[in-house]
Order: sequence, then C-alpha cells, then structure tokens
Amino acid sequence: MMTLNVELGARTYPIYIGSHLLTQADHFAPYIRSSACAVVTNTTVDALYGETLRTTLAALGKSVTWIVLPDGEQYKEWSTLNQIFEKLLHAQASRKVTLIALGGGVIGDMTGFAAACYMRGVPFIQVPTTLLAQVDSSVGGKTGINHALGKNMIGAFHQPQAVIVDIATLQTLPAREWAAGLAEIIKIAAVADSAFLEWIESHITALNAREVNATMEAIHRACALKAAVVGADELELGNRAILNFGHTLGHAIEATQGYGQWLHGEAVGCGMVFAAALSMRRGSLQEAEYHRLVQLIRAAGLPTALPQLDAQRYIDCMRVDKKADAGQIHFVLLHHLGQAYMEPVSDADLEAALLE
Amino acid sequence: MMTLNVELGARTYPIYIGSHLLTQADHFAPYIRSSACAVVTNTTVDALYGETLRTTLAALGKSVTWIVLPDGEQYKEWSTLNQIFEKLLHAQASRKVTLIALGGGVIGDMTGFAAACYMRGVPFIQVPTTLLAQVDSSVGGKTGINHALGKNMIGAFHQPQAVIVDIATLQTLPAREWAAGLAEIIKIAAVADSAFLEWIESHITALNAREVNATMEAIHRACALKAAVVGADELELGNRAILNFGHTLGHAIEATQGYGQWLHGEAVGCGMVFAAALSMRRGSLQEAEYHRLVQLIRAAGLPTALPQLDAQRYIDCMRVDKKADAGQIHFVLLHHLGQAYMEPVSDADLEAALLE
Repeated sequence: MMTLNVELGARTYPIYIGSHLLTQADHFAPYIRSSACAVVTNTTVDALYGETLRTTLAALGKSVTWIVLPDGEQYKEWSTLNQIFEKLLHAQASRKVTLIALGGGVIGDMTGFAAACYMRGVPFIQVPTTLLAQVDSSVGGKTGINHALGKNMIGAFHQPQAVIVDIATLQTLPAREWAAGLAEIIKIAAVADSAFLEWIESHITALNAREVNATMEAIHRACALKAAVVGADELELGNRAILNFGHTLGHAIEATQGYGQWLHGEAVGCGMVFAAALSMRRGSLQEAEYHRLVQLIRAAGLPTALPQLDAQRYIDCMRVDKKADAGQIHFVLLHHLGQAYMEPVSDADLEAALLE
Repeated sequence: MMTLNVELGARTYPIYIGSHLLTQADHFAPYIRSSACAVVTNTTVDALYGETLRTTLAALGKSVTWIVLPDGEQYKEWSTLNQIFEKLLHAQASRKVTLIALGGGVIGDMTGFAAACYMRGVPFIQVPTTLLAQVDSSVGGKTGINHALGKNMIGAFHQPQAVIVDIATLQTLPAREWAAGLAEIIKIAAVADSAFLEWIESHITALNAREVNATMEAIHRACALKAAVVGADELELGNRAILNFGHTLGHAIEATQGYGQWLHGEAVGCGMVFAAALSMRRGSLQEAEYHRLVQLIRAAGLPTALPQLDAQRYIDCMRVDKKADAGQIHFVLLHHLGQAYMEPVSDADLEAALLE
C-alpha cells in the first residue's frame, strides 16, 4: 500500500492506495467518529462492491444508512442530490454523521456536495472506484452538481477526511472508462511534469493492460502532482486553474452532446488536443510536442476529433465556463509538455482554431 | 454611524450601522471588486428600497443583475434558490460576481447560500432590512434553505464581505416583524449578558417606539455579543450552540404550523419561554428570573403560549434538530439570565414540560 498526504493545513488528509482496501476496516475506522454513517453509491457499483463495504462497516459496529442512486452523469443534478438529503433526514442523521462516497466521480462529487451542505457541513470519506475518480476527483475538494445551463456550476470546496483507493475495483471498469481515467493522468503530466509524461509514454502498454504496479505508480504520481498544485492554491485563485487543461472545450463537448454521452475523460482528451493545437497556433508549443501529445492520447484509446458542430455553439458553451471573466474565454495553454499557462483567447481565434 | 468588526481571521468583516446607508455608495465600493454584481431581493423590499440601491450602484458604474424573488419563508427552498442560479447563469455572471442580499433573513440566508454554491463560492454583501436580520442573520455566516423535512437543513457557513445595516429601512417594518427582531435581541442577552438584558428591560418602551438611538445601541450590542460568540466558535462545534436558545422548540413550532404562519422571532420568543420553564423544572433557573424573562418577552409584544398540539408531534420535530445526536434532543438551558448551557433532555421530561 502507498500513502500520500494532501497538505492543506487543518484540512490535511491522507490518500491510501492499494489492493483490496475495501475489505480492511482499519483504513475506515479512524475517520468515522460517530456511530452513524451513510454510504452513497449507485446501482452499478452497489451490485459489485456494496456487499464488501457492508461487511467491513458491520465489523466496525457502525449503523449504516445505505443510499443507492441511479448511475450516470445525467443524474448529477439537484433532484438526485435531494434523494441523499431525504434519506439522511428520514434516518434522523445528525451533524455527526460521516458520509462515504463509493463510486466514480459523479458519486464523489454529489456525496461531497451533500456533505458540504447537509446541516451546513458533515465529514465524508471518498472511496473512488474508477481510475478517473481515483486520480482526479479524490484530490482537491471540488464537489458539486451540474445545472441545465452549465456543468459543475453549483458546488463547494469541501475536503474529505480520507481517500481510500482500492485498485482491485478497477478490474471491473469498462474499457472506455479506463481510457477516460488515463486522460486525466496524461493531463496532469502535460501541465506539470514532463518526466512523468515520458514515464506514461514508456508505460502506456502496461497501463492499457491494467498492470498492477504501473497502475499504482501512475495513480500515486498523478495524485501527488495534483496535491502539490492544490496545496498551493486550494480555492483556485491562481495557478490551480492549469488543472483545467483540456476542460474548457471538454465541458463544451459534454454540454452540447448531452451529459452522459461522452465520458468526462474522453471529452477532456479531445479538449487537450484542441488546447495543444491552439497553443501551437499561438506559437508557444512546438509542432513535435503537439504530435507527441496527440499520439499518447490516441495510444490511451481516447478520441482526438471533436464532434462536428457549429463553432459558435462551442464558443457559447465555453463562455459560461467558470474560468471566463466578463464574457472573455480563458484557456489553459502549453509552453512545453509539462509547462502550462492561462491566457484569454478571442472569439475570432477560437473560431479559426475550431474550423481547422 | 457605528462600525463593528466580526473577527474571523482571514474572513473578518465589518458591520456598518447607521441611517440612510443605502444611499451612500462609499460603503459598498470597497466590497464590489469586479464590474459585475447581482442584487437579490423580494417583491416587497424591491418596491420600498430597490430604486435607492439601484441609484447607489449606478453611481459606482456597476453592471447589476436584478433578481426579485417572491416574499415569504415558504419560498426559502430549492426552487427559489435555483431562480438565483438561473438568473446568474443567463447573465453569464463569472466567479468574480458579488451578490448583494437586500431584504430580511430569508433573502440573506438564500443569497448567502447561493453565494456559497455558485461556481463553488463567490463574495456577497448583506444589506439586512429587518430588525431580526440586522441582529441575527447578518452575524455568523449561517446560510441555507429549508427542506420539507426540516428548517435550515441544507446550507453552508459562508461569511459576507461586509454587512450594511441601514436602520432607516426599519421605519416600514410591520409591527409583528419588529417584535420578532426584539426576540432575537432578548435571546442573545438572555444567554450571554445579564447587563444587556437589564438595559433592554429599561429601554423596552423606547425600543417599542423604534427610537433611533435605542435601536442603534440595541443592534450594536446584540451584534457585538453574537460576534464574540461566533468568533470563538465559527463552525458551531461548541459554545456557539447557545445561540440556539429558544430555537429547538421554535423550529418545531414553525415546522408544525407551516413555515410563514409564525414568524421566526415569534416562534423563538415562545421557545425561550419553554426553554426557561424547562430550566426552572430542572432546578437551574430561579422562578423570579423565569418570570422576568417571560414579562420582557410579553412587553416586546411577542406571544408566550405555544399552539395546542400533541406533545409527541413537537418531540418528533425537535428530534430532527441539528443539535440532536443519536436521536437524543439537546436543549439550550439557563443557569441564570445571561448564562446558558446545553444538555440532553429525555423525551419523558420534554413531554411533561410540554403538557404543563
């Protein structure tokens, strides 16, 4: 097992990475301080791992409220979130209840936001079961739900007590979701660590085969890189925004295609290709580096061409992005592989790049 | 004008108390850092003070999104909150937008919660226009909405940039709402400052007449007391809970009578009488002190008898209170006027007290 601390002062928390951690009660015990907890999961993950977690929590003698939500990004909205509140209130859960998120990014984001808001804030534990959630949504404290007018528009920064990454759960992950997780691993390397990007390039076959050691190292390095960025800028007032590389267009793809059609990681993969192309057009990224990145994204099994749509629709979608300011779209761009910066980009430049 | 700082480290903010502050742009200017802001108000307050604030913000050259909600506690719930999000998203408001809450406690709580959640947090300014909001919801950072299963169950701690208390707005306040505000002033004195309680007793006629100097002193002292309690325990992990004196039964009255039938302050007035009676039954409060408190609550024009209802219904309601733990109801009780403590109370004791 590997352990990593996300350093955030009073909100510092550990990430445990290993196989079959779901069965090990001692990883949960220190973080459930009252007798009551509530597990939030979805129908798919419940069928696969619900029983395992039930057994582990039963061994700790905890009283558990079990909340099973429908599976899919399209359910990451208010009425599903409200199901969590209703179940907690019906169970008379107090401010001391600990919520446990068992699932992918959607479950983690919604459970974290429910924990941020229930009685103005209760503790929670992340148990991410997808590669994407393990490297992305389990570090940084971003929680929230989508709004019909924009993704992740309603939410909170709320840090978990601990993150328990059981890589055994990755064995059941569908191929598309595996690739979507690799997209976020490639992303953090692309903006922050060229040596890690080279490591991914040389281990992409092992990663595609879900080889245990490569997987653990990739998760650990990605989490550590993200934790360093987040630790320096918890509330995304500055440099943390580079983690949104590929996300500006990525979010627009998800919004225009309907949430749940494209996986988040797939849209981000495509968004990275676009942001790299834009960097190259603006003279900041070398063509050879652009091609290396595109090749790696393709080798990970991710799409690199965006859905055909009117350029103006993408631009309208990108304008509601949280990084936009006074209607001006800000993009995360690359100087080099491993080195990012943020810059406003005009509508005309975006349109020209989208038409290419 | 009086100024008071609520000391919360990096989240320290000022409260300005005075007449006609709504017309003075320089009180707003330092707290609206971007060109865009959004005013959230309700139909009643908009008709009375909307134009004044519009003129003030226009003088600052701000681009203002105006969001007018229906008036009433029954609207303090998700679908009304979502109107704020929709208007902000339609206006393409960025993370730099400042929200301004112009209204009573309902507007303050909802606007504050919208500010806590919109794009994971934007700044906001409180401009409370009721006596209750001026002394209560403008100090402490509690924001939120009601849930069908409990009051203020969904929310966040989110501190404003500044609170601007314009006591000129109190001239249009209905008599019941004035008394409801006095209830919260009496409450803070009852739990934390016996000298202030004596001051209220000797100034109750001036306060009932809304005399300017007495009003300003009462607001300033109540806010200062509350700020001291909140400053020592921002997240209500300990002693801050004494501010809930009168609220456990008060919330149950509001919930059983339907939100909006009883004003919050009226329910709290009644709840204080009950909590004081309970304190006396348990031998901690002298009968003479109990009678002094009841007399003051009555002199402020507040109801002291609770609506006739099955005791069990009240108890069931109190059990979902945020201070409850493992189904056990915790009450804020009084040792003396000006000195409070918290204690679990059994259902049997509650039932006996309710039947009295």
